[in-house]
Amino acid sequence: MSISKLFQQELRQHYLFRRLPDEAFNSILVQSNLTSLKRNETLFEQGDEASRFFLVRSGQIMLFQSSPEGNEKVVDIIGPGQTFAEAVMFMEGNRFPVNSRATCNTELFFFDSKAFIKQLHKSNALCFVMMADMSTRLKGLLTEISELTIYNAKHRLISYLLGHINDLQEQPTVKLTATKSMIASRLSITPETFSRIMSKLKKEGLISIDDETITLIQPEKLKEIIGEQFLHKKSGCM
Amino acid sequence: MSISKLFQQELRQHYLFRRLPDEAFNSILVQSNLTSLKRNETLFEQGDEASRFFLVRSGQIMLFQSSPEGNEKVVDIIGPGQTFAEAVMFMEGNRFPVNSRATCNTELFFFDSKAFIKQLHKSNALCFVMMADMSTRLKGLLTEISELTIYNAKHRLISYLLGHINDLQEQPTVKLTATKSMIASRLSITPETFSRIMSKLKKEGLISIDDETITLIQPEKLKEIIGEQFLHKKSGCM
Repeated sequence: MSISKLFQQELRQHYLFRRLPDEAFNSILVQSNLTSLKRNETLFEQGDEASRFFLVRSGQIMLFQSSPEGNEKVVDIIGPGQTFAEAVMFMEGNRFPVNSRATCNTELFFFDSKAFIKQLHKSNALCFVMMADMSTRLKGLLTEISELTIYNAKHRLISYLLGHINDLQEQPTVKLTATKSMIASRLSITPETFSRIMSKLKKEGLISIDDETITLIQPEKLKEIIGEQFLHKKSGCM
Repeated sequence: MSISKLFQQELRQHYLFRRLPDEAFNSILVQSNLTSLKRNETLFEQGDEASRFFLVRSGQIMLFQSSPEGNEKVVDIIGPGQTFAEAVMFMEGNRFPVNSRATCNTELFFFDSKAFIKQLHKSNALCFVMMADMSTRLKGLLTEISELTIYNAKHRLISYLLGHINDLQEQPTVKLTATKSMIASRLSITPETFSRIMSKLKKEGLISIDDETITLIQPEKLKEIIGEQFLHKKSGCM
């Protein structure tokens, strides 16, 4: 077994593995390992064959799509504890639908898809974990499409802030865990528009900005602006 | 049992039910029925509790989202043989993420979600059908986001045409099964832009238009314009 006992305990807590019987968990571990990427290193490219899925241990992975003309669009920013690419196991052709790159030095667990599918065949409970997982991602993407098409940039940015509150204190804060340009691309707005809206929200007394920490001074007012339906944390995309 | 023998045979062919043992199929049928909607009748609204999912027998259902300001965006157009809302079974809160309305007189089968979930608990094979189904939808939504954010309206329209070819003849045709304004909304462009691009493609000798039938005169050239990655039929959204 290539993953140390300490890491095994860590993995065991994750919702994907929590319900697995020991035997099943161990047989997945045999085909798993921990790897690391340097800042800006590519993990996989769109169209690459997908035989693994991933769990970020530390650092950050950016998932993005690119057009033949070189336009890039960040579709997700994956942080510690988050998995990605597990739904790709079931996609026809078994190829990654996006590119991925580390945005800083990053540690990743990877799992063999075939070994995991074997366990899915044996465990109905695990199938239900997967189906819940995929439906959450589906809902997140539907929300995103709706925000892209019927809401404007200001809505999207406020929705992002409300979806990334660190704690439920009276004065909630958001720590920006990615660069301004990455978050802007994630929200499909230009970095300039991002800055303009932030300044405006600050001027209106709705937020205050201290380096990478945004304090939501009037969260209720922000919620009012975007309406009820977008008050949830965005889920990952694949 | 409320669905007649003839309809039962019809349902049995659907990929969702094909692999089910008789007993499981019959116990889902007990909680199912056929219903009909008139043109413009609402089936459910965004936020309604979801205890059923659906299969269109004839006619057409439009799925759309609306903003508090009344902006509408068509997220999917569901035709005969297509199911929708089955992934909602697994979504937290169990509420429909979109609105739905019949665009013409429509016949629908509906199925009780709880009865279906019971069968999923009993059948691992059925879980795999569902996971494949959801991953296809995930990929479709990812493609849509990419098209919305890194591709332009022309790309989207061509991708739509190539994804809706009726047959694989040398001279492929597309029959428009929805109104111009519905398709335009589905592609997040204005009806005016839709018409303008169609005229341009016609002028360039790439397509010809005969009422609701579009002939793709130079399909290879159309594929070249949008690149490889979007040559697939869009899958449903929930």
